[in-house]
Amino acid sequence: MKVTEGNLLIGDIKLECGEELKDVNIRYHILGDIHSNPNRVIWICHAFTANSNPADWWPEMVGQGRLFDPDKYPVVCANIIGSCYGSTGPTSINPKTGKPYLRDFPLVTFRDVVAAHQSLKEHLGIAKIWILIGGSIGGFQAMEWECEYPGTTENLVLIATSAEASPWVKAFSQSQRLAILADQTFDGNDSNGGKAGLKAARSIALLSYRGRSSYNLTQQDTNPNQLSNFKACTYQNYQGDKLVKRFDAYSYFTLSLMLDSHNMGRGRASNEAALNSIKARTLIVGIDSDILFPVEEQQFIANHIPSAVYREIHSQFCHDGFLIEYQQLTSIISEFINL
Amino acid sequence: MKVTEGNLLIGDIKLECGEELKDVNIRYHILGDIHSNPNRVIWICHAFTANSNPADWWPEMVGQGRLFDPDKYPVVCANIIGSCYGSTGPTSINPKTGKPYLRDFPLVTFRDVVAAHQSLKEHLGIAKIWILIGGSIGGFQAMEWECEYPGTTENLVLIATSAEASPWVKAFSQSQRLAILADQTFDGNDSNGGKAGLKAARSIALLSYRGRSSYNLTQQDTNPNQLSNFKACTYQNYQGDKLVKRFDAYSYFTLSLMLDSHNMGRGRASNEAALNSIKARTLIVGIDSDILFPVEEQQFIANHIPSAVYREIHSQFCHDGFLIEYQQLTSIISEFINL
Repeated sequence: MKVTEGNLLIGDIKLECGEELKDVNIRYHILGDIHSNPNRVIWICHAFTANSNPADWWPEMVGQGRLFDPDKYPVVCANIIGSCYGSTGPTSINPKTGKPYLRDFPLVTFRDVVAAHQSLKEHLGIAKIWILIGGSIGGFQAMEWECEYPGTTENLVLIATSAEASPWVKAFSQSQRLAILADQTFDGNDSNGGKAGLKAARSIALLSYRGRSSYNLTQQDTNPNQLSNFKACTYQNYQGDKLVKRFDAYSYFTLSLMLDSHNMGRGRASNEAALNSIKARTLIVGIDSDILFPVEEQQFIANHIPSAVYREIHSQFCHDGFLIEYQQLTSIISEFINL
Repeated sequence: MKVTEGNLLIGDIKLECGEELKDVNIRYHILGDIHSNPNRVIWICHAFTANSNPADWWPEMVGQGRLFDPDKYPVVCANIIGSCYGSTGPTSINPKTGKPYLRDFPLVTFRDVVAAHQSLKEHLGIAKIWILIGGSIGGFQAMEWECEYPGTTENLVLIATSAEASPWVKAFSQSQRLAILADQTFDGNDSNGGKAGLKAARSIALLSYRGRSSYNLTQQDTNPNQLSNFKACTYQNYQGDKLVKRFDAYSYFTLSLMLDSHNMGRGRASNEAALNSIKARTLIVGIDSDILFPVEEQQFIANHIPSAVYREIHSQFCHDGFLIEYQQLTSIISEFINL
């Protein structure tokens, strides 16, 4: 499997919020070879804390012998602006000050992100994507992209996502931001600041990703006489610490604001009208236990994208089912597109 | 309506965790007059951040002309140990150091709490409670009390509660504690410390109390072109700030550990056996949208307390329905007990 990691400097961009972001770089991965198969490009949009290498974070879906096999079809993924995996983000140097942006990083929306990815697509000489796919906020990007640039893809696959961040989702995000803000080291002076807040934020986010059924399935205690240090608590600590080792609080905060801004209806006639304008063949996949973007929200998308087909995954792992239930996902996607 | 606020100094108590808590004081309220109607005492166990005056925090249920009318039946409520509303808690002076306990306050369980309330009951000369009622962790106290001291009450009413804190509930608690710990002012030196962490913790807790349906019902934005400062986010800030004005981070942290420790089966044959030993007439009330203590957990209690009757409230307000759906609650309780 050929793996190419690249950077595209797309220069200064005018953001939707009105601010300008200078010297924007986009980090991307190409798995396989675009030139040998330019009409069969699979473009994967990544979720919240992921990077531009889907073989890393979606190994059961992407790789040799997997549904998305780079030896058969080239796979592209780009790190979103605001993240810390190579694209311009809060820990990048602000050309105006010569120091990292940190808390001065502007509000970036998914429309800003897809405009940058559109430049990358052109740069890579991809006339039309074959399959544009994203789960969670990867789905936000994919649907925004096809809506802003109609004809971007032949097939659109949206998994466990939503046409708009709901008040419930925003309340979850705000709780995470409050936890980061509670950490006095998140003061904009040190890119290592806010780590204790980030740990708490990850713990909160996990609640929304995993849900009650998943905790009650995997985090039961075995000693009935325990008074403290329960398994579910040490699990939250462990997962929080794990993220802190690979992510920073400033990027997390930025992506959390980006998440909240997602609204297909913004500046358009309505959510329904925006979805209705999507002409690509579309597959929507919901997860029956998802509490973050429940199946109603997938069905809403499916009801308004004209060609959409809706399928549902059965899982006890809630939102994270999109990373875990690869067998169901493989079979649902194969049924939709002959790979 | 006669209102008596009192303190009972019950002295030193040996806690379940093995530590001794010295000079324990219990703050309580009596609404109405016990002596004129000693066989019709209603004892209300309060929830997480409430105080010993239920007319304050449950005004639609307790007061003149309400279901629990102190002019007809005396109402008693005691502040739980570990809270900040008058009973001994983390901001009380530690006799060993002459300074507030803060982070040195020991682990207190609901069994410790009900042992103290048992002393208060005896002190007040109440031979048998007529109705012992509690919602949420008020229910934890009520069921522990009747289990530890069989015959405490004639009628037991448990609303939106559970026989055991589930892994899901503990993961929520741990996230709240991580948010408090992220605040570097929560260092045990100042009883005002941890306020930013407490704000975040309250925001997290509200997610579990209110649930998706409640947020999506009440926190929708009206401006479709907004990019930030959404209604759900300002609501979380507002509710966080509101709690910080009336509660402290140390007491919150203590009660959160107490919540996690709840397990009717601890030191007993099993959860089922503990519930099975409860002989009082029992009413269990679940709320159909509750995501913290879902109806399955109420049904579990109802299935194992021999005389239990199960009723369900329909609400979009999830766990907080027990404070909001007073009309349904009034009618369900009246049907169970002729008040």
